[in-house]
Amino acid sequence: MNRFASRQADYLPSSYYNIKADLDEAPKPPLHPATKKPLDPRDLEVIFPKSFIDQEIATARDIPIPSEVLEAYAQYRPTPLVRATGLKRYLDTPADIFYKYEGVSPTGSHKSNTAIAQAYLAARDGVRTLVTETGAGQWGSALSYAGALFGLEIRVFMVRASYRQKPGRRTLMKLFGASVEESPGPTTDSGRAFFAQNPDHPGSLGMAIAEAVEVAMRSGGSVKYALGSVLDSVLMHQTVIGQEAIRQMDELGAQPDLVVGCVGGGSNFSGLAFPCLRRRLKQGAAIRFLAVEPEVCASLTRGELRYDHGDASGLTPLLYMHTLGMGFVPPPIHAGGLRYHGMAPLVSHLVDRELIQARAVGQDEVFQAARVFLRTEGVLPAPESSHAVAAVIQEALAARREGRSETILFNLSGHGFHDMGAYEINGRPV
Amino acid sequence: MNRFASRQADYLPSSYYNIKADLDEAPKPPLHPATKKPLDPRDLEVIFPKSFIDQEIATARDIPIPSEVLEAYAQYRPTPLVRATGLKRYLDTPADIFYKYEGVSPTGSHKSNTAIAQAYLAARDGVRTLVTETGAGQWGSALSYAGALFGLEIRVFMVRASYRQKPGRRTLMKLFGASVEESPGPTTDSGRAFFAQNPDHPGSLGMAIAEAVEVAMRSGGSVKYALGSVLDSVLMHQTVIGQEAIRQMDELGAQPDLVVGCVGGGSNFSGLAFPCLRRRLKQGAAIRFLAVEPEVCASLTRGELRYDHGDASGLTPLLYMHTLGMGFVPPPIHAGGLRYHGMAPLVSHLVDRELIQARAVGQDEVFQAARVFLRTEGVLPAPESSHAVAAVIQEALAARREGRSETILFNLSGHGFHDMGAYEINGRPV
Repeated sequence: MNRFASRQADYLPSSYYNIKADLDEAPKPPLHPATKKPLDPRDLEVIFPKSFIDQEIATARDIPIPSEVLEAYAQYRPTPLVRATGLKRYLDTPADIFYKYEGVSPTGSHKSNTAIAQAYLAARDGVRTLVTETGAGQWGSALSYAGALFGLEIRVFMVRASYRQKPGRRTLMKLFGASVEESPGPTTDSGRAFFAQNPDHPGSLGMAIAEAVEVAMRSGGSVKYALGSVLDSVLMHQTVIGQEAIRQMDELGAQPDLVVGCVGGGSNFSGLAFPCLRRRLKQGAAIRFLAVEPEVCASLTRGELRYDHGDASGLTPLLYMHTLGMGFVPPPIHAGGLRYHGMAPLVSHLVDRELIQARAVGQDEVFQAARVFLRTEGVLPAPESSHAVAAVIQEALAARREGRSETILFNLSGHGFHDMGAYEINGRPV
Repeated sequence: MNRFASRQADYLPSSYYNIKADLDEAPKPPLHPATKKPLDPRDLEVIFPKSFIDQEIATARDIPIPSEVLEAYAQYRPTPLVRATGLKRYLDTPADIFYKYEGVSPTGSHKSNTAIAQAYLAARDGVRTLVTETGAGQWGSALSYAGALFGLEIRVFMVRASYRQKPGRRTLMKLFGASVEESPGPTTDSGRAFFAQNPDHPGSLGMAIAEAVEVAMRSGGSVKYALGSVLDSVLMHQTVIGQEAIRQMDELGAQPDLVVGCVGGGSNFSGLAFPCLRRRLKQGAAIRFLAVEPEVCASLTRGELRYDHGDASGLTPLLYMHTLGMGFVPPPIHAGGLRYHGMAPLVSHLVDRELIQARAVGQDEVFQAARVFLRTEGVLPAPESSHAVAAVIQEALAARREGRSETILFNLSGHGFHDMGAYEINGRPV
């Protein structure tokens, strides 16, 4: 635990926060894809490692973090909580803005928080290979890193649009020793169905999930599947972010009035928001929560709340969530991590209960926000995280118009150093 | 100062360490390029901001860090000191290995430590534009960031070999608002002399320095020049690294026996080493110091110690340093930041006094070391920093052969996320 020389070890939480323990009404359960009846957790064992399923169905409020996982976290955690003084000055706003910067993790985003947990649990269960999907590659590179840490083979289906846009993350995964293939591709039934239509198919997270799940299902138990978002336990692993942020804000004598994060599957937003939401649920703290999604893949603001598959081929359980439909193929925007047709059931539930607000923003505004953030704070956000920045700028300007002081906390979930192509058109910065 | 929520503010030093105050024998002074007589500091005013020159000739041991600079540092400092447990396990060595990780800075390397200081001093002096050179782009992007912080225009001459190898850093500089041109190019007399020979000339740091210095000299005072390494005060700005590292090591009850860094101009190495060297000079601590350079640009191990120009056109003062000759053009290796014909006069002096050892390593070994480090520590080092990693691995393996315990501290001066092309050949990881 003393790997990272730091008195800041004080900030590291020793357990994950399981928000389900604090909800009056539980979200609707997942259904078996064939029987449409509530899932028996044992049905999941064909896909997931057993220890992971245990966390998925855990009911305790605090789930201890294994010491091996804590040791790995201690290499980069606690991540900085930064007061965005440059952005505040530029916007000339009475709002105080703080960001939690997850880009300092080895692979550059929050995804390592759950990748390390999932790889550790899988290795402890004796699993040798994990298969997964990735969009922009943040999740795939985090799992490749975690696989290297715990001696697992990693196989990644990378959505074709991102595979071609972001060669850096592809290379990074391979350097970690992972195998990476374009999705949809010819090696699975699910992939072939789309690949046959169009070998340049841009793909989607739903299709890549289908390919990865199919590989696990057909492996006879030798390969298990890992998912980078959406599931209750994945969101729970990310609560280290919010727990740290609360301690860091407390030390500064600051309390958030508004908590903001981008959402694709929902995990980075939930990781920051859920521990803060607990203060609202249990202590009545007046905190607003804002989940920000891309206009062209707006499951929360334009999707329906209903049962749908998590993948594009109908292999996964049915999840009760906001969805654009499992067949929805988002345009190949640069924020590949947000190109998901559905939304985490827990986030969907809390939006439905009006505990979380949702907002969609367009890609042009997002890139403009990223440039402002770069020039005022010096950090280049990932295109995904830039959605949160865009909404924060909207809110800070609203506070200025209304002459209202407000403390905004947002999650800067990753850096954009592997997304430089997104910031250039014909070799010129956009 | 409380921008970065952190009890770690305790680690941030309040002054730079000026090693010249602790040396019995001073290095030989710079000479005027025309008269060959020791330089009058006022001669430098045609190139540098006045406040910068004051720091260059300062004799006090501790030079206070201005509060505006400290506030900017506090966004990313203190940087982590990490115990490399994964690497130690992999090498099966009795040596304990620590690294100071400067890659968490906004632009990804130690260069922002001096960029922020130089931009602040220039802005305070009323300078509107700074012109500079850059190799791999670490320095250029750091100065572009610092320029955005303090409202300066930044113009960068980027060595052509790197301009083409590393489009990401080029884009990053432009996003900060800097103008970036390939060097050698047609806009200066110095550039034209080489550009006319070959419009695809790979360039060198010496040529890019000549172009930038020429622009400053001809500007009639409206443009000043900033240098990212070599000069005494630039090395001094980097001593925040070593001062923090000592406090972080002290807290862990560890003392380095060996301090390692890569060297191009010498600033990241000196930043870590000089505060530790003080312990050797003043307290007789038995610490070895190892500066690591590329075999193909080995100024310390294959160059001569003599007066030479800092640039390729003979515009700068003559510096007493290890040099391969101002006309030397290194091959276009990926570690563009180390492609410099000379070496900091202070480092040259200390190597000559046998206080610092030097070693050259080859590019293949460097890339192998980077891969090992990535897989064991999760961090992709910049090709420059990987030179330090390669030497650390050599030393850790020597400790194993000799059954000798040793505490190694090295500077991981930057990440390699903008160098992914260097880690690929024909799209496959090397």
